[in-house]
This record gives sequence, structure tokens and C-alpha cells, in this order.
Amino acid sequence: MSDALTPEVRAAIEGGHLATLVTLNPDGSPQASVVWVGMDGDEVVTAHLGRYQKVRNIERDPRVVLTIITGVSGEHGLDQYLVVHGTARITEGGAVPLLDRLAGVYLGPDQSMPLPDDPPAGVVNRITIDRVTGVGPWAS
Amino acid sequence: MSDALTPEVRAAIEGGHLATLVTLNPDGSPQASVVWVGMDGDEVVTAHLGRYQKVRNIERDPRVVLTIITGVSGEHGLDQYLVVHGTARITEGGAVPLLDRLAGVYLGPDQSMPLPDDPPAGVVNRITIDRVTGVGPWAS
Repeated sequence: MSDALTPEVRAAIEGGHLATLVTLNPDGSPQASVVWVGMDGDEVVTAHLGRYQKVRNIERDPRVVLTIITGVSGEHGLDQYLVVHGTARITEGGAVPLLDRLAGVYLGPDQSMPLPDDPPAGVVNRITIDRVTGVGPWAS
Repeated sequence: MSDALTPEVRAAIEGGHLATLVTLNPDGSPQASVVWVGMDGDEVVTAHLGRYQKVRNIERDPRVVLTIITGVSGEHGLDQYLVVHGTARITEGGAVPLLDRLAGVYLGPDQSMPLPDDPPAGVVNRITIDRVTGVGPWAS
């Protein structure tokens, strides 16, 4: 486990805040999208039903960054936020149960993910935390 | 002006939502931070009092991405969000008046940016919008 994964960092990641996930395109340009995030053990996890650009990017270059604005007001009136620098890997399957679990956090208790009939197994993106920066109790 | 700068995109950028600004580090890894954003004419602008890593990154590689979560609920219970793909350039000075203008948006009318005595002139980051994606009226 990374020393960066403090209880405050874990709580922020599991707090139901949307995250910006940044990956790298084949030409080196940044690619970003907004995703649901959770923890699985000491890894940050996101679920994807399709082999989207971000998934293909991670398979080619595992360097990712996540930002999460936690909404607790910090210095200078800016909200506190977390920047998670990590190394990602894609594992096959498991997207549907993870989306259902995260729907309970993001949409509310007892909610499940609205899915098409017979959804694909998808993939899970598993991020090992290398470093955490930002504004908040996780900033050095 | 880019065709991507529709009235809906302009309103989202000027709506007082914190943005994630992504730049590229010297080793090609993504760098991200959370910033205030506004418009100056047809450019997206951010203000920086110091020559931070993101500023140096832009001077070396102008490819940037901004994400903005607008908080209006979209499909699948995910909030709507904007991904602005742009080309940035750094101009000297002007950070303090821009921060004061953005404080009126982010902190409230008649608010100004809490600044140190005799603040540096800083820099303004000016982003030309190349393309907009995401979930919302700006998505194709």
C-alpha cells in the first residue's frame, strides 16, 4: 500500500464525488473524462462497459491522474481537491457489479445502474496510487 | 473563433464551476490541477501568480484539456460535463485583475481575491478552444 493512501484520501475517493480521469492519447496529448470512482482494497477502481479510448490509452501507457473536488471549502475560497497520480491496469469483466455498487454511492442507496439488456462484462480499471497532491489534508 | 464555442459552452465556462486543467509534464505524464476559469473574448483564461509547473508545461507543450462538471443532471444520473480540448499560450502579467474578476464569480459579487501585499503580476493562460466533448448539449 502506498503511504499516500491515508484515511482522508480514502474517504475523499469513496465520498461520491465525480472524478476527472486523465489518460494519454497515442500522440501524447491528454485525454480526460468524468467518471464514478471507488476503492477495491487499496486500488482506486472505475468501471467501463466498452473498450473506450481511455481504456485503450491505459493499456498502452498506464500513467493516469484523477482529480476529485471534494466540495469542502479550503484556502482562498477554493474548494478542497485531490490529485491522485497513479499507475493503472485494465482487468477483464466485472464492470456491471462495480457500476451497481457505485450507483448506490452516486445515485443513492438501493439504486442500481440503468443498463441495457444483456450488458457486456466490460472492464475494470484498477489504479495503484503513487502520489497524492492538491489542496486539503492530503497536501504536503 | 472555433465552431465549438457555442452559447451553451460559453455559459458553462462562465458559470462559476471549478475546472480541472490538464497539462503535460516534461516526461509526457499528465499534470492536473483545479482552477478558476473565465472567458476573455473567445479564449478561455486562467490566472497564475507564480510560474508553476502547469505554466512551464504549457510553455513547452501547448496541448491542454479542461474538464468542467456543470452539475446539471444528465443521462444515467451522471452530471453533465464539458471537456475542452485546446491550445494554450502564456502571456505575462494580468493575473491580479483576472483573479479579482473571477473572485466575483466564484466567491460572490463584490468579492475580490485575497492576495498577499504587493502581489506579483503573474501570468495569464489563454486557451484557444479546438474541440469540445463530454455529456451535455455540447456533445455530438
